[in-house]
Amino acid sequence: MSGLDEAGVIELIACGELPRSDILLGIGDDAAVLQPPPGKLMVLAVDTLNEGVHFPKDIEPRDLGHRAVAVNLSDLAAMGATPAWALLSLSMPTAEADWVSGFAEGARRLARRHDVAIVGGDTVRGPLSVCVQVVGFVDPGRFLARGNAKPGDSVFVTGHPGDASAGLAVLQSGGGDNRLTDRFLRPQPRTDIGRAIAGVASAAIDISDGLVTDLGRLAAASGVRLVVELRDLPLSEALVDLMGAGRALEHALGGGDDYELCFTVEPGRVPALDHMAADWDCGITRIGYVEVGEGVVLLRDGKPCPDTSVQTWQHFPKASS
Amino acid sequence: MSGLDEAGVIELIACGELPRSDILLGIGDDAAVLQPPPGKLMVLAVDTLNEGVHFPKDIEPRDLGHRAVAVNLSDLAAMGATPAWALLSLSMPTAEADWVSGFAEGARRLARRHDVAIVGGDTVRGPLSVCVQVVGFVDPGRFLARGNAKPGDSVFVTGHPGDASAGLAVLQSGGGDNRLTDRFLRPQPRTDIGRAIAGVASAAIDISDGLVTDLGRLAAASGVRLVVELRDLPLSEALVDLMGAGRALEHALGGGDDYELCFTVEPGRVPALDHMAADWDCGITRIGYVEVGEGVVLLRDGKPCPDTSVQTWQHFPKASS
Repeated sequence: MSGLDEAGVIELIACGELPRSDILLGIGDDAAVLQPPPGKLMVLAVDTLNEGVHFPKDIEPRDLGHRAVAVNLSDLAAMGATPAWALLSLSMPTAEADWVSGFAEGARRLARRHDVAIVGGDTVRGPLSVCVQVVGFVDPGRFLARGNAKPGDSVFVTGHPGDASAGLAVLQSGGGDNRLTDRFLRPQPRTDIGRAIAGVASAAIDISDGLVTDLGRLAAASGVRLVVELRDLPLSEALVDLMGAGRALEHALGGGDDYELCFTVEPGRVPALDHMAADWDCGITRIGYVEVGEGVVLLRDGKPCPDTSVQTWQHFPKASS
Repeated sequence: MSGLDEAGVIELIACGELPRSDILLGIGDDAAVLQPPPGKLMVLAVDTLNEGVHFPKDIEPRDLGHRAVAVNLSDLAAMGATPAWALLSLSMPTAEADWVSGFAEGARRLARRHDVAIVGGDTVRGPLSVCVQVVGFVDPGRFLARGNAKPGDSVFVTGHPGDASAGLAVLQSGGGDNRLTDRFLRPQPRTDIGRAIAGVASAAIDISDGLVTDLGRLAAASGVRLVVELRDLPLSEALVDLMGAGRALEHALGGGDDYELCFTVEPGRVPALDHMAADWDCGITRIGYVEVGEGVVLLRDGKPCPDTSVQTWQHFPKASS
């Protein structure tokens, strides 16, 4: 194991980079120079992951690399964009070759799978933290904002919310790798689904801070109320087996780190969605509908229920002094 | 003084944002949606600033906001690009309204001065750290890479290298605000000069880690040797007055945080450069030339001198174990 200087870190991150023909200058200059596709809109997102806040202290470097890219691709998926390039800024207390190599491998592998090139970044000394920015493109008029849900639309979700948060709980209690921990450690951004629904959905958001929290954001941005029927939530068998039905529901509603997509579709477009969705491994589920009003209402077998059991994620709990 | 939640932080950062007509969706969705100018190349840069590494612990929030935007605009200036949009990712242990407000004001003020809109970002809990990404545009064929310096070119630098590093030394020894500390605390990115020299210079780099270190990077990228005449270095009067000639030279050669531009120009284009430079307040100075070879050679009155006194900045000092 050997300590790297800055150039060594950059070399490990740059090696084996995806050779996209739209990169005029990649890693190694003051900035990257790129050729945007003509006639498209650009979509830009950034996410920072801090040790002990967004990932556990003993995370495998490969999983951290994967995660940092995944959470950003998830943001682009929620806009219906096709990702193209990423910048990666890495803070570390020390630079060990094995660690950096694993990290770079995890980041690059996921990026390549989504046809994304890492075109630049920086490497600095500091507490362990990763900040990734992604750039993607979308046709004019086809991007998915949070603010266009309309009363009468159906609400859909991809995959199985709650699995990732249960996976984190398993890891925290010392449990080993399984299907749930995999969902926490290696979230799969729904890039293809986001792109596909761009012509069909009215609004979309990715679920990073918990289903109810993120549904609340979509409701607020659209000026509508979202009504969710609890019995329709797609709880995975693994989640219910591990947690029991009650706690499984809590994880699905309030757990974070799902990186699934939640989106609304007007009634006339649901058949087109169903047709496309037949090809999607993760599946989609209709969990509710949009009505006039505000906020998120949870129904249990058709009747409103207070959502007292939902713990939502707050980066800075509000306080006054 | 009151604690903010995440939405409160975002609101303070978003308020008073520059209304560029090319922003379709700014702060508040999963990602920003933007209209790139047709026919241009895109230039992307990122820089992270960590407390205690890149800025002192007691920095004014306004100065930190300024600095985070400045160091990134400096990267774009070194590419000859016109900046357009920035993303801002802020990690903080707690979110105090006064602090965030000052930070946002400092960032926004500098951004506006360069016609840059802050179009998104994120806010997370963690050690104090700022990661900014900027996007700019440049005409095809006019961007300034590090790798095109040719033997026979002249080497120029803007402003007065060493002032910022001397300013930091003043602050560290408890000194108050003056012209030198201002150069450290509030670096001025050379956006207009970068854009102007894009049609004239052969290669460029911004000086962030010290003149000799960054000249070495330009030399390596271009496969040439840079020869610098020490007596031609534009030491400021304030620097020499404070430090004496010897230590002033050390700061100019090895001190970081200048955010001046260093660039090379082929002989036939020097008159065009001189003509433009008459308008530039910070001034430019010819400090040497390019020849066949490698590395950086320092001359004292025409004779090579060993550069033993230059302390260069390394993010991760190389080590083996």
